Formats: sequence, C-alpha cells, structure tokens
Amino acid sequence: MRVLGVVVEYNPFHFGHLHHLREAIDLVKPDYVIAVMSGNFCQRGEPAIINKFARAEIALRMGIDVVFELPTVYAVQDAGGFALGSVGVLHKTNVVTDIVFGSESGDLCFLQKVARLLTYQTPEFQRSFKMHLKMGYSYPNARKYALMDVLSSEVEKLSKSNDILGIEYIKSLIHYGSKIEPHVIRRVGADDNDETLRGKFSSASAIRKAIREGKFEESMEAIPPVTFEILNREFNAGRGPVFWKDLSFVIPTFRKMSRSDFQKIYSFNEGLDLRFYEASRTTGDLQQFVEFVKAKRFTYSRIRRAILHAFFGFEKEMVEESNKNGPQYLRLLGFTNRGREILKEIKKKATIPIVSTPSLVENVIEDALKRTKEGKRNFQINPELFRWQLQKDLLASDIYTFMYPDKSQAVAGMDFREPVFIEH
Amino acid sequence: MRVLGVVVEYNPFHFGHLHHLREAIDLVKPDYVIAVMSGNFCQRGEPAIINKFARAEIALRMGIDVVFELPTVYAVQDAGGFALGSVGVLHKTNVVTDIVFGSESGDLCFLQKVARLLTYQTPEFQRSFKMHLKMGYSYPNARKYALMDVLSSEVEKLSKSNDILGIEYIKSLIHYGSKIEPHVIRRVGADDNDETLRGKFSSASAIRKAIREGKFEESMEAIPPVTFEILNREFNAGRGPVFWKDLSFVIPTFRKMSRSDFQKIYSFNEGLDLRFYEASRTTGDLQQFVEFVKAKRFTYSRIRRAILHAFFGFEKEMVEESNKNGPQYLRLLGFTNRGREILKEIKKKATIPIVSTPSLVENVIEDALKRTKEGKRNFQINPELFRWQLQKDLLASDIYTFMYPDKSQAVAGMDFREPVFIEH
Repeated sequence: MRVLGVVVEYNPFHFGHLHHLREAIDLVKPDYVIAVMSGNFCQRGEPAIINKFARAEIALRMGIDVVFELPTVYAVQDAGGFALGSVGVLHKTNVVTDIVFGSESGDLCFLQKVARLLTYQTPEFQRSFKMHLKMGYSYPNARKYALMDVLSSEVEKLSKSNDILGIEYIKSLIHYGSKIEPHVIRRVGADDNDETLRGKFSSASAIRKAIREGKFEESMEAIPPVTFEILNREFNAGRGPVFWKDLSFVIPTFRKMSRSDFQKIYSFNEGLDLRFYEASRTTGDLQQFVEFVKAKRFTYSRIRRAILHAFFGFEKEMVEESNKNGPQYLRLLGFTNRGREILKEIKKKATIPIVSTPSLVENVIEDALKRTKEGKRNFQINPELFRWQLQKDLLASDIYTFMYPDKSQAVAGMDFREPVFIEH
Repeated sequence: MRVLGVVVEYNPFHFGHLHHLREAIDLVKPDYVIAVMSGNFCQRGEPAIINKFARAEIALRMGIDVVFELPTVYAVQDAGGFALGSVGVLHKTNVVTDIVFGSESGDLCFLQKVARLLTYQTPEFQRSFKMHLKMGYSYPNARKYALMDVLSSEVEKLSKSNDILGIEYIKSLIHYGSKIEPHVIRRVGADDNDETLRGKFSSASAIRKAIREGKFEESMEAIPPVTFEILNREFNAGRGPVFWKDLSFVIPTFRKMSRSDFQKIYSFNEGLDLRFYEASRTTGDLQQFVEFVKAKRFTYSRIRRAILHAFFGFEKEMVEESNKNGPQYLRLLGFTNRGREILKEIKKKATIPIVSTPSLVENVIEDALKRTKEGKRNFQINPELFRWQLQKDLLASDIYTFMYPDKSQAVAGMDFREPVFIEH
C-alpha cells in the first residue's frame, strides 16, 4: 500500500496546486493521498484568505482523501520549523510512504546533499555561516552564502524558496529517522511571490491580491470552479476575505509589553525585541510598523511571523520543545469516503492520537497517556506540550474569526465542530 | 487666601461648563481656581474626544489656573472611586479651601445627610441595600431604594447623576478628613445624557454625537470659540475625534483571557467575568459585545468601564489600595501665569509630590520618600502604588493615541512632554 503525503497551504487552491497534485499522483500512484495543511494562519505570517475548514473542503473535493491541520506553532515558523511540523504530522501517521514536494531545481540528489551538510554541519560551514551573519545577512542568506563557500558550484539553486523548503523537508525526515521516501517535481507556473495574475497558472499571492483589490472575478481563470464556489460562499456569509491589514489590533497589545516580555517569545533575538517595542510606540499603522522593524537581517515574512508569535504568546521554551518533539496530535480537518479507510489504518498505527474535535480532548489525552505507557509502536505524547499546541490552535482560530468582515459572524470556538466529510 | 477646586472632564468644554465655572467663582470669589480633570479616558468608560493636553489647554484659556490629571484608575471608576480620586487630588494639594459641584436638587444639607448615612451605615440601611441587590438592582439603584426605605421622603432627589456624585464628593471629604468646604450650585441646561443639541446649553454627549455624525459645525453654538479652535486644530492634525467604537481591538485580547483572568480584575464580580468571557467569544463588534453583557445589574457605563479595567489590567488589589490611600501624585497637565503662583504654594504644602513630566519620576519618588520619612505635614507616598498609578496613566495614553484617526500620528509616549503653559 502506498500513501502519498503532501504539505500544502491552499491559500487558495488554484490550478498550479491541481497540476502539482496530479503530477505527484502520477509519480507515486498512491492508494491514498493525505495532506497536512496550514490552519488559519500561513507561513508568510498572514491569516489565510478563508478559514481552514473551507480550505479543507476544497482540498477534499479536488482529490485529497484526508486533511490534517499543521499545528499553528509550526505553520507560522520559518522553513525549518514549518518542515519539522508538517513532516512530523506525515511521519507520525505511520502510514505515509512517499512525500512529494515542488522544487525549482528538480534535483533531489543535490537537495539531499545540502540537507546532510546542514544536519551534520562541518566546522568549515559553521565558520562561514557565522561570518555572514556578522556581516548583517539574514539567516536564509547567511546560510546560502555559507553553502556557496562549501559547495562552490550549483549554488544558484539555493535561492529558490521551494528548494530551500525541500532541503528542510529532507532534514526533517532525517530528524525523525523517517522511512518516508522523498520525491521532487519541478515547479511550473508562477513564482510564489509573483503578485501579477498570469492566466491559468497564477500564484496564490496574485489571486489574493486581486481579491484584495476587489477584482476577484479576474482571478477566476486561475482557480477551479470548486474554489470559486467556496470562496464565494464564504465571502457572501461574511467570513472572508480575511486580510493581513486587519491584524492592526496587535499594536495596542504590544504597547502593554516591555522589552523583556518580547524577549520571552520565540524568534525575538538579534535585537528584534527592541525594534518591536519601539515600532509599536511609533505608529498605529501595521504596514508602517513592519517598515519600522525592517532591516537587512529581518525579512518581511519573519517580521509578520514574529507579530503572530508575540500576540499568540509563543514562548521560546514551548516552541523549542515543539521543534524537538514534533506535533503531539493529528488534527483532523476533513476526510472523504476513501479517506475513512486510511483513517482506520492511522488510528491503529499512528504514534500520536487523532483529534477529531477538541471537546473530547481530555479523553484523547488520557487514552494516549495509557498507550504511551504501554509503549507500543513508539506511541508517545507529552501531555503538557499536547495541550499547549492545541490551545494555540484554538486561540489562533478565535483571533482569526475576529477578523471576519462581518463582525456578527466573528464568533469564537470554530474548532468545536465535526470535521468536514465529503462523500465521493 | 481662597482656592477653588473643581472636578471636570471637559469632554469637550462647552457653555454649560463655562456657566458653571463662573457661578462657582461668583460664589467662592477665589484667588485661584484649580481643576482636577479626567485624562484620556472618562467616567463613562469612553476615550475623550480629544487628548488631555488639548482639553487642559482649553480649560486654562477659559479661566482655570492649574489643571491636574485625575489618575486613570479613578477616572474610569464608578461615582465612588471617581470622587475618591478627584477629591483626593484637591485635598492633597493642601491649598484648596472650597469645592463647588453641580447638583440637581441644590440642597447641600440633604446631600450631606445622605453622605453621612452612607458613611456610617445603619444596620437598617445595610439590610435594605443587600435586599435590593439580591432583587437584581444595580448598585446605584439598590442604594437609592435602600435610602428610600430609610429616608422615606425626598428620595426623588437621589435619581439624578450630579446629586449622586455630589454625595460621593462629600463622602470622600469625610474619608480624607478634609477641611475643604463643599458648595453646590444648581445645574442649568441639558441633562448629561441628553444627546440632542439644544442650542447654547447642549450637553457634552450631544456635542460628541454631532461630531460623530459629521455635524461638528452644528454644535458650534454650544461651545466657546476656544473649544472650536482647539477641536479643529486636533481634528486637522489627525489626533481626533477619538470614539468609543475604535476600542474594538480589545476583543481579540479578551479572547486570550480565561474566566479566572477576568476575576482578578477590579469590578468583575456578580458574574461579570462569565459574561465578558462569553461575549468576547460571541461577536467581534463592540456594541454587540456590550449588549450581550448588558443585564439589569450591569449598567452600560459599568460595562464600558469594565472593558477598560480588563484591558488596562486594573487588578483588584491595586484599585482597592488606590481607593484606600488616594492619589499618589499631582500630575500637572498645565497652568497659567497666575497658576504658577499657586503651584509654588502647592510645592511647599502638598502632601504628595507634583509630577510635571514622568521622565523625572524616579527623582520625584526618591525625594518624596525622603519627605515621607521626615513626616512633615503628613507628606506620604507609597512608592509601589505611585509607580502603578503612573504606569497606568502612561499606558492609557499609549492606548489612546492608537485610536487617533491618522495612524501615523498614533505615537506613544504622549506624557513625556512639558505641561501646557498659557500666558495670561
């Protein structure tokens, strides 16, 4: 039995995603496809355009059998943390056999070589990395230039976001000692950050930008009818579109925080605490806030993610624990008829419990602790970490719904519902 | 030497205020007039329409000699706490000889009788008060009906907001053992809560409503040219008008709070914690939030104030300490040429220190502690309470500026400037 795992955000699902999914299926010829998907906040540090259940529904109708949520603590981390979480979910199902991800270079061997180099860092690499950090380069760039020194050639492959992420996926597979087989497929169509609509293969950024500018119809060419239908349904219900600029309510809360409050939060190093402290006191506009914080070593994505870390209260220790131990549960957002079959397998084989609805979570933890004690199949959870990760997912949803355009729809507790089920 | 003290909000200063001020001056014939004024948030639990320095400037140009800020912890409490703070400031200057306040009944003897009754509560009164609370009446109403039982006649005088506040002023004078002589003058013109413009004597609520509805010009008749000039200046600079609805950013923060977090906050009793917890999870709209919380025993003002208590972090213990010990400093917002003379007297005689700019506050505290030890003239501060009260004032300002219409003007640190000085 082959089970394909994919890591997605589907923000929103477009023809590029569909193309990628079909290619992956052609390559692996799986019996089942499992997606691990960002929840209500994405890796760019932004809220998703529509909520996670609506996005899961699209995914299920477009060919995914089971959708698990990537816990928020991973979804809004840099490539390294994002990969540890998403590969962790797929690995801990204990049924996924293959993972396919996009790559600009399409060169798996090269990515594996780099991943090994980064995992088993040579002193030569470390020296160069530190030197470039000192020169003021951002983390990704310092790493890139250090690799340039060590690898000398082929380095232009390392400037592309999918390749960088691919390396992190492979590193995560090494981290978990996973037997999942990685595959790459070449990316087609628009660059992730290309904000211009380019017909059928437009980027998700371009589609979101069109929606932001009130030109939703113009993006129709780039999205399947199912996406169009669900987006429309959500927009008409007042539950979207949700935009990053609606997060400006973080600023008054930041004004209540001292520098040392910021220092307790993950990703607040290299002086980011001082910049946040000062920026929050300098403007009430979120874009101006980000521009104030911006520096060579702080990319826009990192700043946007740090905003979420601080508002959600992602303390350093718990994020580091999360990265070390991986996800503590498989949060089920939805499944199809076919998905139900593989879910039965997962229930038997997974090394962490499935959470279908958080209202039953104390039973799930109790049961999981019993199984942890029995020690079968490496089943293992840390109940404190489990609760923390799940509470942060619930909080993220409650903050997310506050941003709904129709404030009477902005109800908390979105998570306490049944997963989406699609009969097909 | 006679020094008149008045308690004001001037939100904004209108002809009713001017009339009241002139009558008070006619009555007392003071050498100096000192006002204690709410800062950036007022007793109705709302942000002021323009900031405290701009409002202080108007007051100084309209006949006040010195303006002190009522510390926020008192400014956003019910009548009892508001009076303890404002009378505390006037009393602790140790120069104020007379206090004049408006009254619907105009019957000082009656108000004093009630104040004494409430201070030295008879068992008869206590029984009736508790019974009415149990029946579901709000605090002010339960108190009113208990007094009805005890006083039997004259009770209709107790339904008016100025009389209720007047009783609290007298209670506060008793609390501090103050020798300040109280006087009342009959209120003329509009009721405080009358939101309809009524020519020259319109209420501040009506003026704010006109501004909210974009009909600022229509309120011109009700405000002196100085108020019009300063309001215009502030509005044109993007620093106003500031409206209550702009406070909706509190909701995502409330979604981060548990019931027990709310229970630690002042004024969260009688089940208000549960209502806040649930309301914050039910809507993203502030007005809907308030309607959800509303109950017979929770007035709108109380709910609005509780929103500020929770967001500012007014813990029960510190508010109770504040009410017991009174204000810890005289926060100088502005003064005139004449005011400078009486400020010299205050500097010599006051029992708490003057704070001109918070940047020097550690020196002020050190000096004050020295004088506390020397024990001259009852000089006394509690440094912990001093810092807490002042920090909450600074925080309130930083939250206030975030609500400026022009977000690039929404800079924090408003307090770190010199007091307003008016040469006249």
